[in-house]
Amino acid sequence: MPPLRTALLQSSGQPGDVAANLKVLDEAAARAAATGARLLVAPELFLTGYAIGDDLARLAEPADGESAEAVAAIAVRHGLAVAYGYPERDGTAVYNAARLIGPDGTRLLNYRKTHLYGGFEAGAFTPGDRTVVQTELDGLRIGLIICYDVEFPENVRAHALAGTDLLLVPTALMHPAEIVAESVVPVRAFENQMYVAYANRTGPEGDFEFVGLSALAGPDGTARARAGRGEELVTGDVDPEFLTASREANPYLGDRRPGLYTSLI
Amino acid sequence: MPPLRTALLQSSGQPGDVAANLKVLDEAAARAAATGARLLVAPELFLTGYAIGDDLARLAEPADGESAEAVAAIAVRHGLAVAYGYPERDGTAVYNAARLIGPDGTRLLNYRKTHLYGGFEAGAFTPGDRTVVQTELDGLRIGLIICYDVEFPENVRAHALAGTDLLLVPTALMHPAEIVAESVVPVRAFENQMYVAYANRTGPEGDFEFVGLSALAGPDGTARARAGRGEELVTGDVDPEFLTASREANPYLGDRRPGLYTSLI
Repeated sequence: MPPLRTALLQSSGQPGDVAANLKVLDEAAARAAATGARLLVAPELFLTGYAIGDDLARLAEPADGESAEAVAAIAVRHGLAVAYGYPERDGTAVYNAARLIGPDGTRLLNYRKTHLYGGFEAGAFTPGDRTVVQTELDGLRIGLIICYDVEFPENVRAHALAGTDLLLVPTALMHPAEIVAESVVPVRAFENQMYVAYANRTGPEGDFEFVGLSALAGPDGTARARAGRGEELVTGDVDPEFLTASREANPYLGDRRPGLYTSLI
Repeated sequence: MPPLRTALLQSSGQPGDVAANLKVLDEAAARAAATGARLLVAPELFLTGYAIGDDLARLAEPADGESAEAVAAIAVRHGLAVAYGYPERDGTAVYNAARLIGPDGTRLLNYRKTHLYGGFEAGAFTPGDRTVVQTELDGLRIGLIICYDVEFPENVRAHALAGTDLLLVPTALMHPAEIVAESVVPVRAFENQMYVAYANRTGPEGDFEFVGLSALAGPDGTARARAGRGEELVTGDVDPEFLTASREANPYLGDRRPGLYTSLI
């Protein structure tokens, strides 16, 4: 099975301007496809912006709304899967959600962030109630979570136990939490023997300073791709053969003793 | 509450020679106490050596055997607590165990490694069945696990949920697993908002090459003490006030959603 080339879009687009952000996504998809990428991951709330206050609720769309249609067209046009964050409206509730759409336009995944970060998110969103969503892409099992979710080892472990090979993490990581991008994400990949694709926003936005440092981390805990702090598109390969060999050398899942972990739930 | 100065003894002593290792421990305790340390942590199986084959069973002692008596005398002589690894005999079973003895000679903790590493350990030891053991020292809640145990996020999380402030980890980390000392240990401290004291063996022993890199990691994920690869005694402070402030800024335990983690057990 050939490696899955994965591109990470590190950008904050134009907060508040959905049409502009779809254009940024389209251009990034073109560049990613030109490198042979089969998957593009955009940051948390990329569609609308993050620090846009009440506009989050105003711009929220159903999972199969107009913007999902537009992203599906981008995916088909460039022949690669696209993951991106957006505010999802479902009745009166608004979720901090992410979507994965396949190279043929199929809606593969929708995920609602289960661990909301801080007072801003708690005030703006309803938390999701489903930890693990998965699909298949080019023979790999793909999972999807959002930002703060990855900081909880339980979440990523749940994905590992469910067989996730590549975990997509649209994110909005702020200063001074650089340690999450630099250390926590690679350790999650190592301790769970999977790839983790972490795509961040960048630069100032409202009260926040996003730090970039997007990464594709491998099961050996090293970065296959690593962005700096500015706008950037980086690519790296998810290698199924390396993953298999690494899992044999690091049998964490088999060496677990689940009966000893009852206090965690 | 003043900081608890903690010393890490990075040494393999003399494998197979308990008397020699007690002497190394005594000398390290003297040096540690001279820096103001109230706690000395020695590596996994420090009392006997690690790669000594059948001698592990031959040299195994009860938790309150002669060597515990000797270590208690060292602790009292230098006025500091001592943690160390040893093979524990209980009837026909031999455990990969660690002991913490208080500055007044009190036996504070005994722990039996729950996650045995690889075929060598699985052949030599019976696994323990208790994840969390704790005691108090100078107002801090102290926990004790061994080496491979720390690589499982579930174990350290169980300690965090039980209120551990400082987790002691006698270890025997080998090449090429340097990532554990360099990244996993600091991330455990950060994600669980605790201090982690990781004391490793060093140099070649049998088929193994121990890598040193002992560390005292703080709840911000940085090392308060970090050894190189050779024999060394390093010290760092466990600061209760910093711990309290860090926990307020990083409310991971409060933001957990235990109901979503049921697949882990």
